[in-house]
Amino acid sequence: MIRVGLLGTGRIGSLHAESIASHRESSLKAVSDINDESANELAAQYGAIVKSADDVISDPNIDAILIATSTDTHSDFIEKASSAGKAILCEKPVDLSLPRAKKCLDKVSAANTPIMVGFNRRFDPNFAQLKKALDNGEIGKRELLTITSFDPAPPPNHIWKKSGGLYRDMMIHDFDLSNFIMGELPITISAVGHSLINPEIGVDGDVDTAVVTMVYADGKIAVIKNSRRAAYGYDQRIEILGSEGLLQAENIIENSVVKSTNAGVLSAKPKYFFLERYIDAFRAEWDAFVKSINDHKPIPVTLEDGVAALAMAEAATQSQNTGKSIQLKEVL
Amino acid sequence: MIRVGLLGTGRIGSLHAESIASHRESSLKAVSDINDESANELAAQYGAIVKSADDVISDPNIDAILIATSTDTHSDFIEKASSAGKAILCEKPVDLSLPRAKKCLDKVSAANTPIMVGFNRRFDPNFAQLKKALDNGEIGKRELLTITSFDPAPPPNHIWKKSGGLYRDMMIHDFDLSNFIMGELPITISAVGHSLINPEIGVDGDVDTAVVTMVYADGKIAVIKNSRRAAYGYDQRIEILGSEGLLQAENIIENSVVKSTNAGVLSAKPKYFFLERYIDAFRAEWDAFVKSINDHKPIPVTLEDGVAALAMAEAATQSQNTGKSIQLKEVL
Amino acid sequence: MIRVGLLGTGRIGSLHAESIASHRESSLKAVSDINDESANELAAQYGAIVKSADDVISDPNIDAILIATSTDTHSDFIEKASSAGKAILCEKPVDLSLPRAKKCLDKVSAANTPIMVGFNRRFDPNFAQLKKALDNGEIGKRELLTITSFDPAPPPNHIWKKSGGLYRDMMIHDFDLSNFIMGELPITISAVGHSLINPEIGVDGDVDTAVVTMVYADGKIAVIKNSRRAAYGYDQRIEILGSEGLLQAENIIENSVVKSTNAGVLSAKPKYFFLERYIDAFRAEWDAFVKSINDHKPIPVTLEDGVAALAMAEAATQSQNTGKSIQLKEVL
Amino acid sequence: MIRVGLLGTGRIGSLHAESIASHRESSLKAVSDINDESANELAAQYGAIVKSADDVISDPNIDAILIATSTDTHSDFIEKASSAGKAILCEKPVDLSLPRAKKCLDKVSAANTPIMVGFNRRFDPNFAQLKKALDNGEIGKRELLTITSFDPAPPPNHIWKKSGGLYRDMMIHDFDLSNFIMGELPITISAVGHSLINPEIGVDGDVDTAVVTMVYADGKIAVIKNSRRAAYGYDQRIEILGSEGLLQAENIIENSVVKSTNAGVLSAKPKYFFLERYIDAFRAEWDAFVKSINDHKPIPVTLEDGVAALAMAEAATQSQNTGKSIQLKEVL
Repeated sequence: MIRVGLLGTGRIGSLHAESIASHRESSLKAVSDINDESANELAAQYGAIVKSADDVISDPNIDAILIATSTDTHSDFIEKASSAGKAILCEKPVDLSLPRAKKCLDKVSAANTPIMVGFNRRFDPNFAQLKKALDNGEIGKRELLTITSFDPAPPPNHIWKKSGGLYRDMMIHDFDLSNFIMGELPITISAVGHSLINPEIGVDGDVDTAVVTMVYADGKIAVIKNSRRAAYGYDQRIEILGSEGLLQAENIIENSVVKSTNAGVLSAKPKYFFLERYIDAFRAEWDAFVKSINDHKPIPVTLEDGVAALAMAEAATQSQNTGKSIQLKEVL
Repeated sequence: MIRVGLLGTGRIGSLHAESIASHRESSLKAVSDINDESANELAAQYGAIVKSADDVISDPNIDAILIATSTDTHSDFIEKASSAGKAILCEKPVDLSLPRAKKCLDKVSAANTPIMVGFNRRFDPNFAQLKKALDNGEIGKRELLTITSFDPAPPPNHIWKKSGGLYRDMMIHDFDLSNFIMGELPITISAVGHSLINPEIGVDGDVDTAVVTMVYADGKIAVIKNSRRAAYGYDQRIEILGSEGLLQAENIIENSVVKSTNAGVLSAKPKYFFLERYIDAFRAEWDAFVKSINDHKPIPVTLEDGVAALAMAEAATQSQNTGKSIQLKEVL
Repeated sequence: MIRVGLLGTGRIGSLHAESIASHRESSLKAVSDINDESANELAAQYGAIVKSADDVISDPNIDAILIATSTDTHSDFIEKASSAGKAILCEKPVDLSLPRAKKCLDKVSAANTPIMVGFNRRFDPNFAQLKKALDNGEIGKRELLTITSFDPAPPPNHIWKKSGGLYRDMMIHDFDLSNFIMGELPITISAVGHSLINPEIGVDGDVDTAVVTMVYADGKIAVIKNSRRAAYGYDQRIEILGSEGLLQAENIIENSVVKSTNAGVLSAKPKYFFLERYIDAFRAEWDAFVKSINDHKPIPVTLEDGVAALAMAEAATQSQNTGKSIQLKEVL
Repeated sequence: MIRVGLLGTGRIGSLHAESIASHRESSLKAVSDINDESANELAAQYGAIVKSADDVISDPNIDAILIATSTDTHSDFIEKASSAGKAILCEKPVDLSLPRAKKCLDKVSAANTPIMVGFNRRFDPNFAQLKKALDNGEIGKRELLTITSFDPAPPPNHIWKKSGGLYRDMMIHDFDLSNFIMGELPITISAVGHSLINPEIGVDGDVDTAVVTMVYADGKIAVIKNSRRAAYGYDQRIEILGSEGLLQAENIIENSVVKSTNAGVLSAKPKYFFLERYIDAFRAEWDAFVKSINDHKPIPVTLEDGVAALAMAEAATQSQNTGKSIQLKEVL
């Protein structure tokens, strides 16, 4: 039984709390949050105790730390929890600053504690099935990957202003997903992006609509498309052309009802947002973390993976600003 | 080159005229209709001459007669054209009266002229593909067939009043289609039907919504569902369960555009009615007729097939009126 | 907090145990089974105690009894639990014998304890959404309902031999579903069925493939199609034609991956069987039961509903044996 | 009745001949080809006469010239036919050389004869329906367009070697389609491409797999994806995100049959290639040309459109070779 301390009891923290508590081989023992009320409420629900973050980390009765606090605290908590010898699952992104993330990686690599970064989409059963079919060679060699990833609506202004920008905050999921699917990092990254939805985003130098094209060592190509707004819900699709066919992971829709009337044939929309769409992925992510620790197997998403995705976001930002293709190795 | 005389220049006649004229191995030579204007117009369009029906039939320069006149004239024209040694394609149904149709069959069977009944759905490329997969054993043995066949809107009252009723006029297509797919005739037929759309239809003893269940010698089952009204267009689907799987022929839709908005995901409706939906089937039907004659091959839909479908309509009518299962052999 | 005693700890009982334990307003306090090992195991997992069925029913610290034992015990346990003043959720069917089920209904109706029958499909989110759209009038008046319900594979011989036959054991779900969707009972019921899958089933007088047609007071029609075997998985679809359109609830598939190769475009199969397909429905069913009790609201599926479905199974069996349409009121 | 002279009687010429002959307001009068046999055969089929190209162009009994010869002759024939006062429909591309195409445009612009370029995809009923919905504002403002355009198999080496490369030969269709859908030209063009299918293509400096990203004046974005090989057939899809939703034009498949077995749910592949997929578009294109001339309306695809698409291909080629974004105005 893995005894878990949870740092951060907001929306994502609560979601993880449920996965931890409902898993047969883990239990939620302690929580911490800068908001006392939120921490107390979650603790009461699952019979955990409330402590300061430092006390959670140093508690000898805690085996693993789940970091779901604000991004600017991730690197510090990773370093502390690693020093304390805990297994760590840290929400994405590792940091908004690539140098800080790299420093963190340097610092903890000696400790050899299990550290996993929370790129939950790798654990979505549909994407995992697509990956498996690819690895089985069911469509031959990989040639052209397209990831479509549109949020239902942009975040409130005060949120995106400290988000680090679309590439570091939103597309970072897709960068990691492309690494997962392609099985390697790209060589060059080109980005175009604009603020089509919210002009204020553009004033701040950020974008809300973007396309990134990446080329790999052997010439294969990946395209990532992001928009902060899809009026019809959370659009999350993968499509990859191979030498012998095409694999697509389609959207998951709200229900299976189809209505045919004089107005046409109407089906349900995609599930609204990540809480609805990726609920199974979050559970599978936690299960994978637990299994890695219990079975002493390699962590499926490493801190190196987290740093790589952040570097890709950095390269995309540079490409957008300069209008040139960026070599990933220049950034890494 | 097969020289064709067309009897009947209404909607269906005009459709056939196009198939005849555009086929490389047939040409439209003569037309006839009780409506002079309609006959003249169609003749002018395709460079054919206008004659009385009898003169068309007796014309030695005509090889084949296509009968697209009103149903009550079919048997007479079949007999005359057969006597004249012509190849015949006659629109469905052979007759509204089963005894009359049987008499016609008796009369012409000696003549040995090629006679085909216009059950066009057998030639729909989608249904033909389903049949081929069945015959290939792709889903094992046939077990349970369902034919869904809904018209977009009921015909005007003056039309359905002389139609012979839903079973003889509309479901007769589906009876023939079931014989085509199952490859044999059913043993028993049960029907329920009601006038849900137009109460006046009920007053006249006809129905507008009906379900027929048929059982075959080895116990397999078929269900035919008919409605005179589908607000969303012409609903024409086949579904058959076999010992190793399921085959479905889905609707053909107006276009491939899909619109996702806050209201849902909207696709196009099925094509509106038989002229749009079965245009390829009508062409393929004519081509099959031409090929049968030119290659001296068996006619793909015989007059016996036409009589069998009419007998099934008769049995269904009796079942609906008595509330009992009817043995097809009692009617045939 | 509703304190629950569970009778029967087999496959279905275990499923319910999970729903009970994970619901915020209920807890599993006691379990009972003729198989001690099974009872002990489940009790250990959820911290419940093991008792005899009678002791569970008479325990004053138990508020509600969930009956998931073999069908022949249902009526007795319902009567005992009702006498003890407990709220009851009983798995379907109420009984294999219609007279016994009616006697049970008579006996408990005075007690006025909440009794719900476990027709879980009413709580499937997709079917519930279809029902809601119907009740909203989104396709006008109901005209023609079709329920397709195929199991992936027939049960082992020793199971179906004591199942009561396809109509009482399997189609009873669809009878109840048709009552739910139509909002009324049918007037007449006609059934045809055969043993196409397993000849031994036929020897015992049972069937494995069946079609039932039902007509309602105003002439609308319902068709239920059952097969004990669908090679592609659990086929669970509803389709209803209304005066202004069509509503369909399509299958739920295993994943959203689509593979296009030279062999065609391949999608995932339907989820395998009821445990996978209706997991959300079982949870929603329990939630509805808890809400009914806590909010003192009418029970959504009553014992009368359970008896009605059983009577429809009885009528279908009679119709199949006689080849005639059966009036439901003759049976009820 | 428009009297037409056809230059070029190869595969595309033959296709056009059928459209011309079957249209009610046009007839095929004369044909020309460097291959006498091909010209004679087509002439015989449609009752046309065979002449030299120059004689066809100068024939006073010819109203319109359809140019379906090899690309290197297009500009010359356009100039000659324009001088002769003929209406012109010229197959795409106008020329492989942008300067030559521009010179041609300069030369004929004074003549004011109707000249249409054969970008048939604009006339595909599905794409036309998508455009109409866009123009109706059904998904609000345009934001992000994706065109997927994969051929089923690469052309033989001797064909692609003189094709002018993927951008001028294949993607030029998609460049024109993007102009049609967006209703304006892009400002910048970025391309990445590689030879993943056929290494020999790479040796010659051409590519077989490519992604082009284009940005418009107001910041909206378009992505075009091309591959010379899709094992599952001709993949031709459009998808555009707008401020209020998404519009997609999906593939047209070979038939509507769906087979569900233990192996999964199998649907038909996309129609094989452009002859099958765009047969309706070719007919509608000819009809639009005829209508423009008869009704004295603007030509729907002008020579300017042809030059613009060629300039975009030029810019894409430059971008791929330099790794930089290219301004379209630098090329035009």
